[in-house]
Amino acid sequence: MGLLIQIDGQSGRPVFRQIIDQISGLVDSEALRPGERLPSTRSLAERLAVNRSTVYRAYQELWSLGYLESRPGSYSIIRKRAKKAAGRTGPRPGLIDWAGQSTPAARDLQAAFLRDQALVQRVEASGVIDFISLSPDSRFFPLDAFRKCMNEVLADQGPDLLQYGSPLGYGPLREFIAQRMRQHGVSTSPQEIMVTGGAQGALELLLRLLVRPGQAVVVEAPTYSRALDILHLSGVEILEVPLGGQGLDLDALESLLKRVSPALIYTIPNFHNPTGLTTDQAHRERLLGLCTKHRVPLLEDGFEEELKYFGRAVLPIKSMDHSGVVIYVGTFSKILFPGLRIGWIAADRECIARLAAVQRAAMISGNLLDQAALDRFCRLGHYELHLKRLHRVYRRRMQAALKTMQALLDPERVEWTRPAGGYTLWLRLKGLGLTEDEVVDRLLDQGVAVLPGSSHFFGPPAGLYLRLSIAHLDEAAIETGLRRLARALEGLSGRPGKLP
Amino acid sequence: MGLLIQIDGQSGRPVFRQIIDQISGLVDSEALRPGERLPSTRSLAERLAVNRSTVYRAYQELWSLGYLESRPGSYSIIRKRAKKAAGRTGPRPGLIDWAGQSTPAARDLQAAFLRDQALVQRVEASGVIDFISLSPDSRFFPLDAFRKCMNEVLADQGPDLLQYGSPLGYGPLREFIAQRMRQHGVSTSPQEIMVTGGAQGALELLLRLLVRPGQAVVVEAPTYSRALDILHLSGVEILEVPLGGQGLDLDALESLLKRVSPALIYTIPNFHNPTGLTTDQAHRERLLGLCTKHRVPLLEDGFEEELKYFGRAVLPIKSMDHSGVVIYVGTFSKILFPGLRIGWIAADRECIARLAAVQRAAMISGNLLDQAALDRFCRLGHYELHLKRLHRVYRRRMQAALKTMQALLDPERVEWTRPAGGYTLWLRLKGLGLTEDEVVDRLLDQGVAVLPGSSHFFGPPAGLYLRLSIAHLDEAAIETGLRRLARALEGLSGRPGKLP
Repeated sequence: MGLLIQIDGQSGRPVFRQIIDQISGLVDSEALRPGERLPSTRSLAERLAVNRSTVYRAYQELWSLGYLESRPGSYSIIRKRAKKAAGRTGPRPGLIDWAGQSTPAARDLQAAFLRDQALVQRVEASGVIDFISLSPDSRFFPLDAFRKCMNEVLADQGPDLLQYGSPLGYGPLREFIAQRMRQHGVSTSPQEIMVTGGAQGALELLLRLLVRPGQAVVVEAPTYSRALDILHLSGVEILEVPLGGQGLDLDALESLLKRVSPALIYTIPNFHNPTGLTTDQAHRERLLGLCTKHRVPLLEDGFEEELKYFGRAVLPIKSMDHSGVVIYVGTFSKILFPGLRIGWIAADRECIARLAAVQRAAMISGNLLDQAALDRFCRLGHYELHLKRLHRVYRRRMQAALKTMQALLDPERVEWTRPAGGYTLWLRLKGLGLTEDEVVDRLLDQGVAVLPGSSHFFGPPAGLYLRLSIAHLDEAAIETGLRRLARALEGLSGRPGKLP
Repeated sequence: MGLLIQIDGQSGRPVFRQIIDQISGLVDSEALRPGERLPSTRSLAERLAVNRSTVYRAYQELWSLGYLESRPGSYSIIRKRAKKAAGRTGPRPGLIDWAGQSTPAARDLQAAFLRDQALVQRVEASGVIDFISLSPDSRFFPLDAFRKCMNEVLADQGPDLLQYGSPLGYGPLREFIAQRMRQHGVSTSPQEIMVTGGAQGALELLLRLLVRPGQAVVVEAPTYSRALDILHLSGVEILEVPLGGQGLDLDALESLLKRVSPALIYTIPNFHNPTGLTTDQAHRERLLGLCTKHRVPLLEDGFEEELKYFGRAVLPIKSMDHSGVVIYVGTFSKILFPGLRIGWIAADRECIARLAAVQRAAMISGNLLDQAALDRFCRLGHYELHLKRLHRVYRRRMQAALKTMQALLDPERVEWTRPAGGYTLWLRLKGLGLTEDEVVDRLLDQGVAVLPGSSHFFGPPAGLYLRLSIAHLDEAAIETGLRRLARALEGLSGRPGKLP
């Protein structure tokens, strides 16, 4: 088929958008008819001299816009557009003002979602080095082992696992998690563990249990952006306490606790998202002491507990907790298979018992099939093996990142953290007369995608920050990306840099 | 064991509280030691001359307070209270008062959860015919086919499916669902479909999007008990409108809508849970008309849409909706694999776009692996095949239930519905001088387990109701169970019945 498509290299419009515009135009004008087949992504890519993934992305979008068939094997066939139900006369569509009916938090979240989607689309456009994605690198997923485990549990316990199950989660997995927590010094039993829909599901349940709308929750500033989302959605008052070089500013927290009595304090002591900071033993003890004294539950997010690459281990705050003040949240999602949505809460038995009732109300039961498959995977040693591999891989990546930054970035203009583990680096830019959006934009133009820092603050950020994740990049990509970043920053500041 | 308990009939304190106080006192003072067994509820009830359900209630509460063991078969054994991790000196365990910190709704939910667990434990005890469970019969799960599909999608798309995915759900499954909805007369496209964590997850997201705490939601009385749970948990005001023989009382609704403007109206038009009622076309049109006129979104729960056994099809209200007022919620859980937690929302595109942002905030992404496996399962025709089989099986079961009830129950003393599909039957008992708990208790003693009607009302129920589900019972069990039920009811009313 001779498809009349031309790419305008001078136009500012991304190539995949140009392809979409032209194909959808051909369909709308009936130059392309239902049943006709588009060229393969490979052949169109060759013809237009563009990357194949660009064409692929355009086809995907066309499919999601309803221009292409969606039966397997027919994804590139022009679809007969569905007609709306031949209707009697009635009020026209759009009677409900969904924006107006939405809660204010839901409106804010949608705006953020659209912003993020637009950013992701630009990143996926082509050739950009992606320092945004914070999911573990799929290339290392031990898929065959997992598939085998899935098969075995389906064969052995299929009917039970596919029924409604306890809202506490799959018993043996709770045991495995308890065992794993004990390896980190946390004295716990399966009765003190509940499996949740990822760490996010855990946060949601805890807010449902412990926080009335309008009650306050203390967070670090900056903190995990999705935690801010769920707090905001839940209608709680968010109190930000600054994060200094040693972690949460405990003097500020102490004086805050004299005035207000928050329902929860939320902290990420290891490889903090976004800053990469790890707090030391003394800091942990003092924080726990404050919570104990004021009887405020401390929500410890250990989302990357097992991703330590350098230095001595620091035990979770939960390991020092003898009065059940700490609620620990963990997840498998930063090690493997985030799509399974499996996390957990380790807390006082009384707290867990109550959370079970909340989880039942929110979702009836957990997904026992996936929990059982993951449990078998862990018990056969695949988890441990995979973790060791990740350590080797990411230690090298983090070293490469730190070394390259050391070599290329000017400490007069950029400050950055030196994480002992995890995936994120946090940069502070100084003395630039630009907004954050402008910086992110210019970096994208230079082929490097980073996350703007402001999404990690609920209020206005105290400076111009960028978050870089090394989760999806090998050493070569990290070095190339940082080189582009350094060059772009020098261009922005108008000063000559270290680069030759 | 001679237990020194005395009931003070003059004290204002409820009898079950007096039992709890005294037993917990005996344990705390070590007059009762770990491992000792309490008398059976029957024998203690006889000794104290109180109702057995009163003792039962006290034991339940003691169990939930941690005074009794919780392994099956040991519910009446005094428990060794857990020691906390051998620790340095520090504040004593239980520093946080979890009950006191819980939101009021979470407290209510826990009480209900414990009650339900205790009931389930009694049902599982032995030989009882279970008319409670409302999950599809696992014996019919097409497991081999599902396992094959799971294998194929893991092999073909494993890395992508195990990563974070779109909060809208797996694209091809959305397409399949849209197609399926079109078979029910609903004109919809994949862009108007979002996959959710079962129907419950759908309800939760809709409340998050559309209802501020304190705003009102209209429900049928009676209605699905878990819908009441999530409404209560979400802090909304619940307005009950009575359900008559034709469905929701529309005159009552109309006059209510003149006074208040609810954020949502929640209805189950097919095989209503718990009553089994299906509303007719005229009722659906008038309800839709009221919602359209008052611009109130109508939440149509089609949880058993495809489980019609008798009579002509009635199309979903959504099929008549030309102004996007109806939000349709569906689920796979009543047909197959409830453990996968896969349901969906079909609504106006603008509503879906906003729900995606809420779902991202609540759970980051859906579980694409399970969604893809289910999608393949459906596309290969296994869903359709399974559904046909269920129709054959449950048509016979429903017929057996209705025929047996006709033969054995006295219409002077019992009214019951005649559902055209689904799993539930709804009985109203008349002229008994007993509480609901007492009736359920006596039925259990006779080897038949039913759900008390009151869990389906938010306020006090307008009569003594029982819900019976045929989901897990074959014809023989249904007949035996109903025979036991009929005999027990005759015993309770003290009148001779139809039984020989």
